[in-house]
Amino acid sequence: MSDLRIADIRVTPIAFADPPLLNNSGCHQPYALRSIIEVETEDGVVGLGESYGTKPVLDGLAATTPALIGSPVTDLNKLWSVGRSALGEAPNRLLPRVVGAVEVALWDALGKTIGCRVCDLLGGQVRESVPFSAYLFYKFARHADATEDDAWGEVLTPEQLVDEARRMIEEHGFDAIKLKAGILEPQAELAGLEALRNAFPKAPLRIDPNGGWHVHTTLDLLPRLEGLVEYLEDPTDGIPGMAVVQAATDVPLATNMCVVTPEHLPPGLAQDAVRVILSDHHYWGGLAASRHLARICAIWNVGLSMHSNSHLGISLAAMTHLAAATPNLTYDCDTHYPWQNAEVIEGGKLSFNKGALSVPNGPGLGVSLDKEALKRLHQNFREHGYDSRDDEAEMRKHRPNWRFARPRY
Amino acid sequence: MSDLRIADIRVTPIAFADPPLLNNSGCHQPYALRSIIEVETEDGVVGLGESYGTKPVLDGLAATTPALIGSPVTDLNKLWSVGRSALGEAPNRLLPRVVGAVEVALWDALGKTIGCRVCDLLGGQVRESVPFSAYLFYKFARHADATEDDAWGEVLTPEQLVDEARRMIEEHGFDAIKLKAGILEPQAELAGLEALRNAFPKAPLRIDPNGGWHVHTTLDLLPRLEGLVEYLEDPTDGIPGMAVVQAATDVPLATNMCVVTPEHLPPGLAQDAVRVILSDHHYWGGLAASRHLARICAIWNVGLSMHSNSHLGISLAAMTHLAAATPNLTYDCDTHYPWQNAEVIEGGKLSFNKGALSVPNGPGLGVSLDKEALKRLHQNFREHGYDSRDDEAEMRKHRPNWRFARPRY
Repeated sequence: MSDLRIADIRVTPIAFADPPLLNNSGCHQPYALRSIIEVETEDGVVGLGESYGTKPVLDGLAATTPALIGSPVTDLNKLWSVGRSALGEAPNRLLPRVVGAVEVALWDALGKTIGCRVCDLLGGQVRESVPFSAYLFYKFARHADATEDDAWGEVLTPEQLVDEARRMIEEHGFDAIKLKAGILEPQAELAGLEALRNAFPKAPLRIDPNGGWHVHTTLDLLPRLEGLVEYLEDPTDGIPGMAVVQAATDVPLATNMCVVTPEHLPPGLAQDAVRVILSDHHYWGGLAASRHLARICAIWNVGLSMHSNSHLGISLAAMTHLAAATPNLTYDCDTHYPWQNAEVIEGGKLSFNKGALSVPNGPGLGVSLDKEALKRLHQNFREHGYDSRDDEAEMRKHRPNWRFARPRY
Repeated sequence: MSDLRIADIRVTPIAFADPPLLNNSGCHQPYALRSIIEVETEDGVVGLGESYGTKPVLDGLAATTPALIGSPVTDLNKLWSVGRSALGEAPNRLLPRVVGAVEVALWDALGKTIGCRVCDLLGGQVRESVPFSAYLFYKFARHADATEDDAWGEVLTPEQLVDEARRMIEEHGFDAIKLKAGILEPQAELAGLEALRNAFPKAPLRIDPNGGWHVHTTLDLLPRLEGLVEYLEDPTDGIPGMAVVQAATDVPLATNMCVVTPEHLPPGLAQDAVRVILSDHHYWGGLAASRHLARICAIWNVGLSMHSNSHLGISLAAMTHLAAATPNLTYDCDTHYPWQNAEVIEGGKLSFNKGALSVPNGPGLGVSLDKEALKRLHQNFREHGYDSRDDEAEMRKHRPNWRFARPRY
């Protein structure tokens, strides 16, 4: 029989170029950080994971992974207990982030060892391919210290937004469209959304102000949003405010902000604050935890969608396997993937077909590491890495008087 | 790589002797029925399951299993969808019972194929051995048509109850004690419980009237129960009544009656009707569904225990693997196992050590089928089987005027 015990865990931080995308917190920095996790078993099988690359997560991984050596890759209970011992009640929901980073690599290692795809290990594939949404951002034309515009150029007006959508949809075939909002005046963002509706009459639309609107602002905007969006994501911040808005409308409120840990589920569901939860295996604690979340959504009759941060192909593969095995994940998933050119897997970027991704072939996640690319991206990290993401400071390089505010409007 | 596809599924109904145990519904019949499920893969590996043996479940299995041939044993989503297609919205929670019966055998087949124990596949062993409780019943001395008393004799008085407990604890070493109630006058059953407290001063005690008491009766009894029991199981029937009782006491109410399907969870938890849920993989839809239930209990801060029906060693092995892999299953599990002498696994009855069972060694569930015993017990079924359990009719053989009533008191 195979030896499923963990012989080694390697964590490599990487950095890759990211455009100056805008959100309620500010502006994306020139480099996005990730960590690549390799779990090697006693048999020499290597399972892959990808997660956050900021210092708290890297430190958390360094504090947690040594105690896992010798454990079987199936022992998720041990992963949680080792993580809990190492990190305690660490702030910023660090524990599920560290666990989630390792956990995906454990599933990949198990799958590669026994010849099963991760979606099979998660309960079986229920859809041929997984549809993703066009994730639109307002953006500057270039980073503050850049000398020329990036390939996407400035996107601050409705016309520019429609151009961005058109290009992204032409390239990847997405159906649903998500607009990251909470940056401009709400009226301007609604005008952008309505321009998208005119340009793409049948596209399911979403808008995500990242909690940037007051409750009263949101209530005032509801008449324009009703009938326009398939869901309204985090218009305002916190369960009580979301509950006030949800009580006033039939538009489903969605969240990846006010229900982001298990502890948020009882109050969030009891108060009917959200009708769609955006799962994210990176911060819910991995694939098994995400399956639990999905089941809870099914039982409580709450919709399920999927959140994304800037990421590369290992994360995209994991998201695809998870979504393929989750019956009630019926909304198109979010992904930042079209915004990044870099890749760390062999064969380069994965390709969307009509906006959807087939489950990668082969056991485990079905992807393998491009070691040269990893080396290159790790060198990037050494040159351009930072301890923690700071979109606010980055924004001030463009707009010196800008200050973070939530709600802003 | 192994071929995990299902080549054949065999379902064998069996019957074995059961004592005249009493409960709110009446009296156990002379034979208890079970089904033994064998799932054989293309590689010739056989996974085992054990579940109910009544006609609806046997018919449900016959309607469901053919469509699973050719699917991988990992495809639990397919098992549910095939079951749903075959059974639709069948009454009496048939779907999760049929799914649960097959599902355990799929885990066993997977584990036996890849050399993993089921508890490892469920997330990893968190306890060395799994403690069970002494499950006490009031009982008649013999079945209605029997000519001599059974080995346990009559148990209808506090003294007889203490003798039954003493014998069961001496034989198996159990710590916690559960009393099946709802049969005698509540005052008489409370006297029995108090006699157990005197005889076993440190034993965690439980009483389970199976919904046999009115709300007002239960409220009147609370002062005698508080401080006496670790939990009070289903004193009254239904979520609303349980919620009234729970609001009046700090004694945790437990249930395997009012929260027995996923649909019961939102109202049961919202109304604070129960603070302990007795899981049972046989009717919740298997081991994965039970892990979801366990996670929900952890998130909603509700205790988790385990329910049992009359069963043999395959079920006991599955219960033990599940409990061993479930961190928040902190109550001793119920089991009817000491009440049955028959066995269908090689090596005969599993043995409790100080009331606890070690996880069986070996891959999968760690048990194998005694084919001669299966043949014998199947012959029993052919001679003594019946379509559906009828404790009420059995009770009338002893007490002709007895009628089922819930609540009774």
